[in-house]
Amino acid sequence: MTRITGRKARLTDVAAAAGVSKATASNVFNRPELVREELRERVLAAARAIGYAGPDPKGRLLSAGRVNAIGVATGEPLSHFFEDPYARAMMKGIAEICDANGVGVSLISATEDEALWNIRSALVDGLILFCLEGADRLIASSRARNLPFVALDLGDTDDTVPAVGVDDVAGARLAARHLAVLGHRHFAVLAMEFSEDGRSGPANPERVRTAAYAPSRDRVIGYLDALADAGLGGAVPIHETTADPASITDALAALFARPEPPTAILAQSDRIAMIALDWLAARGIAVPRDISIVGFDGVPEGALTQPPLTTVRQPIAEIGRRAVEIILDTTGGFRRETLATDLVIRGSTAPPPARKSVSATSALPPAGA
Amino acid sequence: MTRITGRKARLTDVAAAAGVSKATASNVFNRPELVREELRERVLAAARAIGYAGPDPKGRLLSAGRVNAIGVATGEPLSHFFEDPYARAMMKGIAEICDANGVGVSLISATEDEALWNIRSALVDGLILFCLEGADRLIASSRARNLPFVALDLGDTDDTVPAVGVDDVAGARLAARHLAVLGHRHFAVLAMEFSEDGRSGPANPERVRTAAYAPSRDRVIGYLDALADAGLGGAVPIHETTADPASITDALAALFARPEPPTAILAQSDRIAMIALDWLAARGIAVPRDISIVGFDGVPEGALTQPPLTTVRQPIAEIGRRAVEIILDTTGGFRRETLATDLVIRGSTAPPPARKSVSATSALPPAGA
Repeated sequence: MTRITGRKARLTDVAAAAGVSKATASNVFNRPELVREELRERVLAAARAIGYAGPDPKGRLLSAGRVNAIGVATGEPLSHFFEDPYARAMMKGIAEICDANGVGVSLISATEDEALWNIRSALVDGLILFCLEGADRLIASSRARNLPFVALDLGDTDDTVPAVGVDDVAGARLAARHLAVLGHRHFAVLAMEFSEDGRSGPANPERVRTAAYAPSRDRVIGYLDALADAGLGGAVPIHETTADPASITDALAALFARPEPPTAILAQSDRIAMIALDWLAARGIAVPRDISIVGFDGVPEGALTQPPLTTVRQPIAEIGRRAVEIILDTTGGFRRETLATDLVIRGSTAPPPARKSVSATSALPPAGA
Repeated sequence: MTRITGRKARLTDVAAAAGVSKATASNVFNRPELVREELRERVLAAARAIGYAGPDPKGRLLSAGRVNAIGVATGEPLSHFFEDPYARAMMKGIAEICDANGVGVSLISATEDEALWNIRSALVDGLILFCLEGADRLIASSRARNLPFVALDLGDTDDTVPAVGVDDVAGARLAARHLAVLGHRHFAVLAMEFSEDGRSGPANPERVRTAAYAPSRDRVIGYLDALADAGLGGAVPIHETTADPASITDALAALFARPEPPTAILAQSDRIAMIALDWLAARGIAVPRDISIVGFDGVPEGALTQPPLTTVRQPIAEIGRRAVEIILDTTGGFRRETLATDLVIRGSTAPPPARKSVSATSALPPAGA
């Protein structure tokens, strides 16, 4: 048995070299489960010996219709998947399930109208959509593809869309209630974007109410609900931030220029909270002595900050796992799953500084009640 | 102009709705650069109005032959791309260049023989290979695909392979020389894997010499070269480690069980160094007072450790950029690029503890000489 020289080895050559029919040789490469192991080994050995590179993937694509890859699409640049702590943790979970299923992952960026062709032309068996940016266009393009897809971080925006996510209102309530029970009375919210128009800065109730991005809106609703329940209604400054870290540090500068700065910050993501921790540390504002801060997400990096970050933990790996399962589930039923969050209390929260504390006896029942 | 109902809108429908020929409509979707902007806008508006989803990507694949995606393959599980600090930093660089070129990224895992079909079946225009594990099979499979490919971290293993990387010997020399100049006399090397057989523990010269993975071997060569130049020849314990963090902590336990533990650790990656820092901190061994440690890679996380990590910095983003350029360069010349490293001195290195220091006057010229 010698290598075929002068031209590419073909499946017919493999069949001849192994002494099997071309149909059997084809099955070894395309439907190996149909072929006895010893026969399969013989054909593969013959293929190696003559230098056969396997069937042309484009040909197989046409015949089988599946490409054995899941697309993960974002409205942000591709680098988001490797930079943003939450996206990174989610991708780790998605990658682990794809590994277990022998499925590849195609990363797709759809940052603007033209880039939607990236979704329309992606060679994948299904799509997972990161709906932090551009959810509408991601969903519309995915629908046009007629492939299974599932949205992450969609909130309750559109209940006709298959989605996996958390109950953002309930999660945010946990954060605000924790701070209220500690005795805080002066809060501020560092919010994620409410819409894709690039605005940042103070957000009024109308801006929140008309948010295109439901998780940002729902986390504000949860914070304010819990504070109202604790008898702490009233104006809480809400600052909208963007991917630009300066939008976060500008918000902090504005809050600390007030006559009465907050003693407690509700950050809508761990990323925002971690940037805030750096800003506070650089100015000698001690956490949690001078100010408490609670994040949202539960990314691994949050356990390593100084002090470690108290946060609302999403079951990130579980969200990723379910999203992949929905794509791979060829029975194809519509699924919408909402998972629970929990509060992870670490070192970034404590009672407010004495000068600002109110009566030590809080009217609130204990946190577990 | 109304939406087509009852069947999928076709290109013919778009052409009719926009009042152009089918050839022009086709160009708008497949070769937009050939169509005047106003005409393009008119056709796209018509497509949107009637709900045309764009050409079938599988059809376009067959006619154009390009899929507008780069494959990045690893011998490790896919989750490696999101967990390993060096892989993550490299992927950020690759993603940024792909973003700038409007190209998608397909992640491919080829962990074992069967998984090589993942490379053979990947629908991509070219491949970047992470050659930390399974370089031989990654390269052989890529060659069989007859697509452009480029290897990362290949070292000088096979000079017929297009590759981008650093001069590992020169980089390692920087690290060892820095420690020698500080006055250290007792060294240990925490090495990456030398081969894919899963072995860890003390490595003898034969193990190093016959390494399948050139960067591990070359970094040892660089360390020992620089120490010999400084008149510090003699036995330096070398411990091989794997992806399992226990292989690193076991090596440290063995080193610190010696009558004379090292005062300086040469870690072949920042990941190894960061795991070592955690182990040392947990045992109250102060860095750099009791022991110095130098990493390799220059990942962003290394600047955030306690103390910040002195390291040999690779130009990670630049390596990623050049790798993508080689793939996208349709002139297709063979390219092999070796880039320089530099030493980033942070807080994890200092002179050795007094009880072990030799004469303060070192025979060595200053580091910059």
